[in-house]
Amino acid sequence: MMKQLTPVKVDKLVPKKPHGLVVVITGNGKGKTTSAMGMVLRASGYEMKVCIIQFMKGDLYSGEWDGVKLLGDRVELHTTGMGFCGIQGNPYSRAEHRACAQAAIDLAMGKISSGQYDMIVLDEINNALKLKLVDLEQVVGLVKAKPELTHMVLTGRDAHPDIVELADTVSEVCEIKHAYRKDIEPQPGIDY
Amino acid sequence: MMKQLTPVKVDKLVPKKPHGLVVVITGNGKGKTTSAMGMVLRASGYEMKVCIIQFMKGDLYSGEWDGVKLLGDRVELHTTGMGFCGIQGNPYSRAEHRACAQAAIDLAMGKISSGQYDMIVLDEINNALKLKLVDLEQVVGLVKAKPELTHMVLTGRDAHPDIVELADTVSEVCEIKHAYRKDIEPQPGIDY
Repeated sequence: MMKQLTPVKVDKLVPKKPHGLVVVITGNGKGKTTSAMGMVLRASGYEMKVCIIQFMKGDLYSGEWDGVKLLGDRVELHTTGMGFCGIQGNPYSRAEHRACAQAAIDLAMGKISSGQYDMIVLDEINNALKLKLVDLEQVVGLVKAKPELTHMVLTGRDAHPDIVELADTVSEVCEIKHAYRKDIEPQPGIDY
Repeated sequence: MMKQLTPVKVDKLVPKKPHGLVVVITGNGKGKTTSAMGMVLRASGYEMKVCIIQFMKGDLYSGEWDGVKLLGDRVELHTTGMGFCGIQGNPYSRAEHRACAQAAIDLAMGKISSGQYDMIVLDEINNALKLKLVDLEQVVGLVKAKPELTHMVLTGRDAHPDIVELADTVSEVCEIKHAYRKDIEPQPGIDY
């Protein structure tokens, strides 16, 4: 067994100028909401106050719902949707999906305006915008309403170019391969 | 204020056949380790037992170190590295980095062989392989030693094609833009 070396010291970065970043995670691959949840975990390590609003989601249990509870009272999660609009088997009308998404916009604006959060996650909002459940001006309005030092994370496929333009950091998660193409069903812990 | 609709019921998926997936998160964009941390959060929601081994990392504090502590005793995190080998300012020799990475391989094999974990995260192992701090046969050996129902997540740039071939799900996180290009320093909670 090789001797394990350890660094002489652990550095702790502190930015000279704190910035509230706008981060967009888009693309067709696995790891967008997942990545947002990783930022929530990391933020919790700094005792930041976090608000997650999940657009579209709410009809299907996901492990992150109970996962974030473990992080304590500093993290709140709101599921506002009724599943993916237009996906086969989803029983709700477009009008119902839009009503949910509009309520989510109101909720998000209230949370953002409160100035109480260090990080706001708007999960699947890119998707909601693409599906016209929310309007571009509404999403731009949320980004622009962000307090200077609050981080905002927007996830979902097909991020609108205007939102990409507004963002500081944008990643596109591309599918190279996915287990479901081998007929492996989504697995808890990994996929939901 | 629009009335918020809620779904009639929340479905809880259970796969007919549980699979331990091999997931690779690679690419040059922000959100690889972050995504792995999101899977850890999600897995914790299912009360899974998780072992995270960070290759390369150990000399620079990251919020996930304290974040995972909030998830309780089911998640363990080992930092085994001394920073990024070859990065300007890193004071350690290649031999020292390789010794650390080799010790991390031994640690990982012990954890994997124990059969006690539902999820194993090998953070930055792709990078360690690219930099020849570990060997391809060693990483293949870890993947093949995985118990059938254990998930394994391998992160880092430049994933080796043979590891991509072995994986079930592979995402490439591509940088569309990044705050550091606007001279914004890395920010806690988001970048580390």
